[in-house]
Amino acid sequence: MGSNLARNLASREGNTVAVYNRTYARTQELMDEHGDMGFIASEDIDGFVASLSKPRTAIIMVQAGKGTDAVIEQLADRFEEGDIIVDGGNANFHDTIRREHDLREKGLNFVGTGISGGEEGALKGPSIMPGGSDEAWETLGPILKSIAAVAEGEPCVTHIGTDGAGHFVKMVHNGIEYADMQLIAESYDLLRRAGGHSVDELVQIYEKWNEGDLESYLIEITGEVLKQQDADTGKPLVDVIRDEAGSKGTGVWTVQNAVGLGIPVSGIGEAVFARAVSSKPTQRAAVQRSVTSRPDVVDVPDTFEDDVRAALYASKVVAYAQGFDLIIAGAKEYDWDINLGDIAKIWRGGCIIRAQFLNRIVEAYDKNPSLESLLVDPYFADAVAEGEAAWRRIVGIAAASGIPAPGFSSALAYFDSLASDRLPAALIQGQRDFFGAHTYQRVDKDGTFHTLWSEDGRREVEQEPSTH
Amino acid sequence: MGSNLARNLASREGNTVAVYNRTYARTQELMDEHGDMGFIASEDIDGFVASLSKPRTAIIMVQAGKGTDAVIEQLADRFEEGDIIVDGGNANFHDTIRREHDLREKGLNFVGTGISGGEEGALKGPSIMPGGSDEAWETLGPILKSIAAVAEGEPCVTHIGTDGAGHFVKMVHNGIEYADMQLIAESYDLLRRAGGHSVDELVQIYEKWNEGDLESYLIEITGEVLKQQDADTGKPLVDVIRDEAGSKGTGVWTVQNAVGLGIPVSGIGEAVFARAVSSKPTQRAAVQRSVTSRPDVVDVPDTFEDDVRAALYASKVVAYAQGFDLIIAGAKEYDWDINLGDIAKIWRGGCIIRAQFLNRIVEAYDKNPSLESLLVDPYFADAVAEGEAAWRRIVGIAAASGIPAPGFSSALAYFDSLASDRLPAALIQGQRDFFGAHTYQRVDKDGTFHTLWSEDGRREVEQEPSTH
Repeated sequence: MGSNLARNLASREGNTVAVYNRTYARTQELMDEHGDMGFIASEDIDGFVASLSKPRTAIIMVQAGKGTDAVIEQLADRFEEGDIIVDGGNANFHDTIRREHDLREKGLNFVGTGISGGEEGALKGPSIMPGGSDEAWETLGPILKSIAAVAEGEPCVTHIGTDGAGHFVKMVHNGIEYADMQLIAESYDLLRRAGGHSVDELVQIYEKWNEGDLESYLIEITGEVLKQQDADTGKPLVDVIRDEAGSKGTGVWTVQNAVGLGIPVSGIGEAVFARAVSSKPTQRAAVQRSVTSRPDVVDVPDTFEDDVRAALYASKVVAYAQGFDLIIAGAKEYDWDINLGDIAKIWRGGCIIRAQFLNRIVEAYDKNPSLESLLVDPYFADAVAEGEAAWRRIVGIAAASGIPAPGFSSALAYFDSLASDRLPAALIQGQRDFFGAHTYQRVDKDGTFHTLWSEDGRREVEQEPSTH
Repeated sequence: MGSNLARNLASREGNTVAVYNRTYARTQELMDEHGDMGFIASEDIDGFVASLSKPRTAIIMVQAGKGTDAVIEQLADRFEEGDIIVDGGNANFHDTIRREHDLREKGLNFVGTGISGGEEGALKGPSIMPGGSDEAWETLGPILKSIAAVAEGEPCVTHIGTDGAGHFVKMVHNGIEYADMQLIAESYDLLRRAGGHSVDELVQIYEKWNEGDLESYLIEITGEVLKQQDADTGKPLVDVIRDEAGSKGTGVWTVQNAVGLGIPVSGIGEAVFARAVSSKPTQRAAVQRSVTSRPDVVDVPDTFEDDVRAALYASKVVAYAQGFDLIIAGAKEYDWDINLGDIAKIWRGGCIIRAQFLNRIVEAYDKNPSLESLLVDPYFADAVAEGEAAWRRIVGIAAASGIPAPGFSSALAYFDSLASDRLPAALIQGQRDFFGAHTYQRVDKDGTFHTLWSEDGRREVEQEPSTH
């Protein structure tokens, strides 16, 4: 990804790009293939640093973790006040906060930046999510704007916020990507197993969906993946690939941080859980041996294909609503001034979750920057209401037919939790007060209450919150 | 909880208990009320330490976090080689591992121990989950056995494993408690909103359930909570309690560690998410304003009450299966030798999740200590198979009626994921290879493969796993 990003940079007017790899052979490879792009190649780090004009700007693209710290240290030893070190890897934003703090004390600018778009995006234009200081953004902004994807005439990059804000938002982007992929996978499974569609028919369905309100990169490549035939067997490639989905750090981090911040990202959570289940072949085989009969697939209505589409769309709205809630919570916790509409804008191009859909999110936050939930925006509220009956049918069909749809059903439960005027959480509060004297609050007056459960003729008493 | 534990200790033959609080008034209070129990009270820490016989054993009961470190330091400064410091609070097991390591270097024994049972359990007999060294267990074991709850003639305490093992298992216990409470709450909501039962009828239903295979402390107290009338209004107390469930650290930690270890604890996850949703009154109100129509509750079958019971039981099996999987993964990661049957044994009495059910888990691990999943044990496999059709009906009714049942539906999806011979994770692997060259494996041969998606006449190539 580093060399693709370097080529992207070098291809834009006004940029001269210096290149350094720990292993010179990799630099040599780039020079052999693309030496005509005017790269300044260095064999060692001193030469690399000497070749940069001031304020020096170096973009690091290495495996996240300790490797990043080592490269940062090498550069920091040689850089001078006002110079800028950019980490373009998928760093944990907590590390980015720490690194920015440490380098700031040395007078250096450190910018952790999310870059999404994979190999191709890096080369042709990714979506870029930089954190760091305003000072760094002044120098870095024009450079990043020159290489970013363009959507609706605007470059897909904005200054997200200070220190770790960029990597935080990239983490949430990836979490949403997990949810989006899981939901598409469920739609595929239902269309195939309950709808009885062939893989060829599925290709057509996803191509058609990609012309409607689901238009997105992930729907597009779903069609592409399904279209692929295995050369060896002549079967659809998807039937030859082992059904065990791997995962990297960002999905896990999203869930860990979300639960820590009290944000219910059930869509992302179920996607992470689903990949984890899939990756346990021995356990799956054992359960399959012990389960002697499976339910028959129920008859599906004529509207099934469109019902699945509606369920997918509504569940997707929920996943994005939860993701944006997490960004709001992160901004509050870490004191970032994040513009939600701008996030939606820069996700419209270059990145993996780019979609038509994001224009609607831009509009929603344009109209109301302090929206309580994306589900409250009139456009999305109407869209969900329109698909709601279908969504309910699909969750019911999946449950009856034994086809796992954790993303669809969890999204529906989330919607129904928000929409119910009374939740059974009241019972949970009663239980917690019973066994742990955790206290509760009342619907009809302020204060904190506890019931003296172990007394005869139990009484409720008002009291200070307990510390048990 | 500390004074209750001290009273429990003092009431058992052979124990003499020294007591110290930072604030002497609290010690004075205990002496005033229970001075006849032979406590040795100290006004300062030096006096407390001097009053202990060797090897000294001190049990700390303070708020988890920095307070714990302060007290440990005070004791460690005064303790000598072979002495034992016990932390009985709900510490994060990562802290316990660190503390045990630091104190071991000083020749001291540190034992992080989970204690479950609330105020009443502390006094009358809790379930106790100690970690730490074998040496410490030799001294501590008899003391803890003297105060633990007794189930089926055995004290509810066992040496879980070294360093943080005890607090890890207590964390999972609390995670399962979250799941169990959420599932009961869903059963209550469904019986009430879809089944049309009055609160009085619900009391009878839970009392009846508590005589069958759901017999447990949490089902018992559900009946007790529902029975409670509010003195002010005459209404059932549950209707007066605000429906916003709070949470403490352990549920969140369980999810954070589980996703980090790749264990799909969706039952606990959905419980944590459900409490988080409930605690957002402003967002809930906004969504309720924007949702203009809610679905009607569908007609339920005559078997509804028993269907809900079956769904609750099956979902509970899933939650425990996931919790035990997490203990297995934690033991592997942190090198603990944990006996799963013993865990189930000590949870049969004293703790919040104590239940008849745990005898079945004891039997399952007795028969097969390396069970691939609790769902594979013949007893649980049969129990789930018996309730399976009802479980599917309930999830369908909840979805159609707009009654959130994230725990029931997520548990069913987990079961169906394990039981499906093919998952759509294959499509996800295809997508990941398309946009990120993440590679995939094949069902028909070993190796790692990548498709050259951007080439004309795309080919698959075998290759080393990519590091992108």
